[in-house]
Amino acid sequence: MYQRNQTRQVKVGNLVIGGQNEVVIQSMTNTKTKDVESTVAQIKRLEEAGCELVRVAVFQKEDALAIKDIKKQINIPIVADIHFNPDFALLALENDVDKIRLNPGNIENEDKIKEIVTLAKKKSVPIRIGINSGSLNKKYEHNTEAFIESAKDHLRILEALDFHDVVLSFKSSDALETIAVYSRAAEVFQYPLHLGVTEAGPLLDSAIKSSLALGNLLIQGIGDTIRISVSDDPVVEIGVCKKLLKACGLRHGVATLIACPTCGRIQYDMLPIVDEINDYLDYVQKDIKVAVMGCAVNGPGEATAADIGVAGGVGQALLFKKGQVIRRIEEDDIVAVLKEEIDKF
Amino acid sequence: MYQRNQTRQVKVGNLVIGGQNEVVIQSMTNTKTKDVESTVAQIKRLEEAGCELVRVAVFQKEDALAIKDIKKQINIPIVADIHFNPDFALLALENDVDKIRLNPGNIENEDKIKEIVTLAKKKSVPIRIGINSGSLNKKYEHNTEAFIESAKDHLRILEALDFHDVVLSFKSSDALETIAVYSRAAEVFQYPLHLGVTEAGPLLDSAIKSSLALGNLLIQGIGDTIRISVSDDPVVEIGVCKKLLKACGLRHGVATLIACPTCGRIQYDMLPIVDEINDYLDYVQKDIKVAVMGCAVNGPGEATAADIGVAGGVGQALLFKKGQVIRRIEEDDIVAVLKEEIDKF
Repeated sequence: MYQRNQTRQVKVGNLVIGGQNEVVIQSMTNTKTKDVESTVAQIKRLEEAGCELVRVAVFQKEDALAIKDIKKQINIPIVADIHFNPDFALLALENDVDKIRLNPGNIENEDKIKEIVTLAKKKSVPIRIGINSGSLNKKYEHNTEAFIESAKDHLRILEALDFHDVVLSFKSSDALETIAVYSRAAEVFQYPLHLGVTEAGPLLDSAIKSSLALGNLLIQGIGDTIRISVSDDPVVEIGVCKKLLKACGLRHGVATLIACPTCGRIQYDMLPIVDEINDYLDYVQKDIKVAVMGCAVNGPGEATAADIGVAGGVGQALLFKKGQVIRRIEEDDIVAVLKEEIDKF
Repeated sequence: MYQRNQTRQVKVGNLVIGGQNEVVIQSMTNTKTKDVESTVAQIKRLEEAGCELVRVAVFQKEDALAIKDIKKQINIPIVADIHFNPDFALLALENDVDKIRLNPGNIENEDKIKEIVTLAKKKSVPIRIGINSGSLNKKYEHNTEAFIESAKDHLRILEALDFHDVVLSFKSSDALETIAVYSRAAEVFQYPLHLGVTEAGPLLDSAIKSSLALGNLLIQGIGDTIRISVSDDPVVEIGVCKKLLKACGLRHGVATLIACPTCGRIQYDMLPIVDEINDYLDYVQKDIKVAVMGCAVNGPGEATAADIGVAGGVGQALLFKKGQVIRRIEEDDIVAVLKEEIDKF
């Protein structure tokens, strides 16, 4: 349906970000990184949900040192989030980190930058430069321009050292600013873009702002990796990523649930069935569309897009496929029959 | 930031849909309409949440008759959803309905159509024509074209009777198809557009698909009224509408919560505070941005967009406004202080 932007390809462990590669789903742990057991447990849950790249905060020396142990116990590449201490970047690199998030312009010691870049190059570890609206240079009149110029400032340092394995992010908590800045960045830079709305809040707020902003960019062909920031267990971020990419036509192996909002015509207890099938579909890795519809009169016809569906009546439901009624089933059997049909698909 | 499409203005009770009027938030009850008490109770809850227009299913004669009683007890205009029975449309009109959702092409009796249109015109009641992907004419090769031509077929009947108080909707359960069809419809028709993704599923799924599709259209300037379809209590739809319109820059008097996703740097129990402030903000009708941030080092700087915010540390938090720290507060006082500051704003 649409052309994705051709960005530079950057290797992160066994992944490639950029080019025409699938948009990579990432998240960040909220455990203490030095607490290896908790961090590994959380990363395992993220992996199981479909996370492909995980970031950890490197706040103390012990966090950087823990990366080696964590890596041995997980299957996805790991990114070290370095804020101001360049020594932690070096330590993370020595401990086999796969990617670093670091803004070189924040490091005053030029020799340190050179040391980090040399080691990152030697180890083929890319660097993400992340520009946040909160730390923009105030000399620019308009935020979009400030974001772009700020990225250029950081990039100049890396490019002068002939370092090009870079991913860029531009984070604002405002959806419209996010769209404006990344749209401009996609024109200016060839580096792959990491998309996100920052500090997007609780699950529903974040889903709305992130789907508005990232969705708009993705269907323009912009974006090589995404993170949906949610103030919650990071595992919930992955579901939003998968559902959004699926809705954008950018992911396979994700199920879609079609369900009506119910209305005064409803004659059976539909919502618990929707919830149960919804939970079941989270772990179904198929491009199946499943419908749960409120009325037998309109249901099969309105949900012709569904591969399989039910439309409930009084005590009974119609099982249908692509709008064609297959058979009647008892209301109590709806969930079991749907699960069986999903498994067979 | 962007120009809204100039559509025809259509009056619905005390509201105007179209032109440059605010995008109208609507929902639909899922009670039996003839059960006046339950229906009124649900509409009252919808009104309180911010619903501006409510649709009810007219499934039986008694549903149409109930409209008069319901109207006496509510403050927002009411739409009758008529499926196939033209007599129910006439009854709804006689019982003071404010708008009808009806596809004239589905009514075979031409005299009946004339009768409905004459009465609707006399009572200044507009008609919404709703094209659903499930009921498209298969003669068209591409769905977009089938949607548009199907709308034209229904419109011809009304226009031949010199009836123009029309709102159009084009509903698909697919977000990309929704964007494609409404984008085309906005080029073809001058009538106001009712936006929605149909059968969008449970809250999170619907928020993602609806924000992707409707958000894309709204910031193109397309859309005069919206309904977010959720398989749940209809009241939850209103929150999504308000948050989406706010994020699109199309609503005032809606608060925004900025909150970080937490990371390994966090040193206080932030998530319960986020939840409590989030619930509180649902009923705050101000354009305030409130931040709840995980760390005192980065929090105030990263959330400079916030009018008021807290950034927590060990047992304490910083209260800040527009990035400037105001004072320290005790962890136990965070919620109370924030609520007080929100009220004062």
